Amino acid sequence: MQVGIVGLGKMGANIARRLCRADIHVVGYDANPAMAEPLAGEAGFQPAFSIDAMLLALKGPRIVWCMLPAGVETARLLDQLAATLAEGDRVVDGANGHYRVTMARAPRFAELGIGFVDAGVSGGVRGLESGYSLMLGGAQKDIDALWRVLEALAPRPGQWLRCGPTGAGHYVKMIHNGIEYGLMQAYAEGFALLKDHPDFDLDLDAIAATWMQGSVVRSWLLELSREFLGDAAALEAAAPVVADSGEGRWTAQEAIDRGIPAPVISAALMQRFSSQGRDDFAARVLALMRNRFGGHAIPKEKS
Amino acid sequence: MQVGIVGLGKMGANIARRLCRADIHVVGYDANPAMAEPLAGEAGFQPAFSIDAMLLALKGPRIVWCMLPAGVETARLLDQLAATLAEGDRVVDGANGHYRVTMARAPRFAELGIGFVDAGVSGGVRGLESGYSLMLGGAQKDIDALWRVLEALAPRPGQWLRCGPTGAGHYVKMIHNGIEYGLMQAYAEGFALLKDHPDFDLDLDAIAATWMQGSVVRSWLLELSREFLGDAAALEAAAPVVADSGEGRWTAQEAIDRGIPAPVISAALMQRFSSQGRDDFAARVLALMRNRFGGHAIPKEKS
Repeated sequence: MQVGIVGLGKMGANIARRLCRADIHVVGYDANPAMAEPLAGEAGFQPAFSIDAMLLALKGPRIVWCMLPAGVETARLLDQLAATLAEGDRVVDGANGHYRVTMARAPRFAELGIGFVDAGVSGGVRGLESGYSLMLGGAQKDIDALWRVLEALAPRPGQWLRCGPTGAGHYVKMIHNGIEYGLMQAYAEGFALLKDHPDFDLDLDAIAATWMQGSVVRSWLLELSREFLGDAAALEAAAPVVADSGEGRWTAQEAIDRGIPAPVISAALMQRFSSQGRDDFAARVLALMRNRFGGHAIPKEKS
Repeated sequence: MQVGIVGLGKMGANIARRLCRADIHVVGYDANPAMAEPLAGEAGFQPAFSIDAMLLALKGPRIVWCMLPAGVETARLLDQLAATLAEGDRVVDGANGHYRVTMARAPRFAELGIGFVDAGVSGGVRGLESGYSLMLGGAQKDIDALWRVLEALAPRPGQWLRCGPTGAGHYVKMIHNGIEYGLMQAYAEGFALLKDHPDFDLDLDAIAATWMQGSVVRSWLLELSREFLGDAAALEAAAPVVADSGEGRWTAQEAIDRGIPAPVISAALMQRFSSQGRDDFAARVLALMRNRFGGHAIPKEKS
């Protein structure tokens, strides 16, 4: 079996590795040819220097797994594939795309007779060892055709899910990431309350280790946090700024669109905005208001 | 080795069982003698029909594990034990008490020469099989004296923690439960957004099963949720009302006292209050305000 992969970044390269290790031949392309170099030693991996070259190297019916960032890059790639692939070929969009955008793409691929599958892929950089949690959307026959690929990427045989028709995979991945925002913030608040307590000198790493055994809050995120909770230098070296990608915002927007309360996911998102300095103007307004009505001193900006 | 246990409810009875199964002799007392009956078949378990009888059945230096609800019941029991125990005996308070109350109790026990250890115990009803996550506060020598008991209750040898002096165990347990509030709410919001989507008929249980394999949000709470996510009857039979015990409130209060932001834990707590109907008055006020300024209809209370 053969698979083409476009995008050999953190996710794409490890997906390529996991497929190669399951005896699936991978033809990989990245706009930056240097990205293919670390994969050179992987048995069954073949670099391609253009998308056309990749498609030529694959026997039909072809499978192309797209692992580019969502948005313009993925849109451009899917346009190119729609124009180049033949009837019976199949495309998997593994990016964190918005499910409504994904749904809107379905008719075009359907008209061309090209299978189109959206795949939510979770597992981060650990997926290479542990396998990926795969949330799929698309026609049953297209997902059936990916069977060997999905079995190779999943943590255990059969442990991947067709969530529903096109868009369902990206939708479930979006909610997954929204939940992730809330979980991360809950842990972070708890650890902030454990740190520097006036009465106790608590060992955050030892506490996390204890919680991992038998407690209600044990989780993979907690296990992962053990890599840095005891590392004061790593914690100090990290700026207190948390990026957000689209999925947290989309989850909050979905809650608003459908009128379903999601205060924790939304608050976690807003905290990330604050960490990015996006609350600074509002904070300045508040400081000045306090000054005007109460004569309170205005904290001076650090120069 | 012998341990006295006061309180044979869900937690106390399973702690008794786990100790018996580790060849520790347990003398158990509950104000309701019927609570001891399910333990009758447990080798090494001996019921006592009063606290005095329990103390008489234990050889000195005695260990008494208190597993009553925090508050009045635990306060009364600790008063009684302070008045009855001898120098060299030891008391463990396994309730979810407020750490400041626990700290305030330490001098009295110290004067009497009675060891006093606070134990945060997590693991719920599953602790019998999996063991308990144990967060301990108190003098090192008192915790050392509990070694066999802690080894028997912990999920794995050595997997319990002296967090610090008296109060530290209850403090860490309080924060643990605060985190738990946030985690639970994040999952619940996510599942609410997966349910009844206008475009997809999503299988919540299958999604949770997939997430348990390799995804970033995998956790014990998610695993536990699989017991009911596919059970529509169980979900419908449960009233949409979530109780809260002291720990969530105390965590939010701690955040306020120390000026540490905890928006997710606080929002999760507030959502529980709302579910209890405690937002109804505010909602009525809003409905009437909308009516007065905009002429909007006032929704009628169901009769």
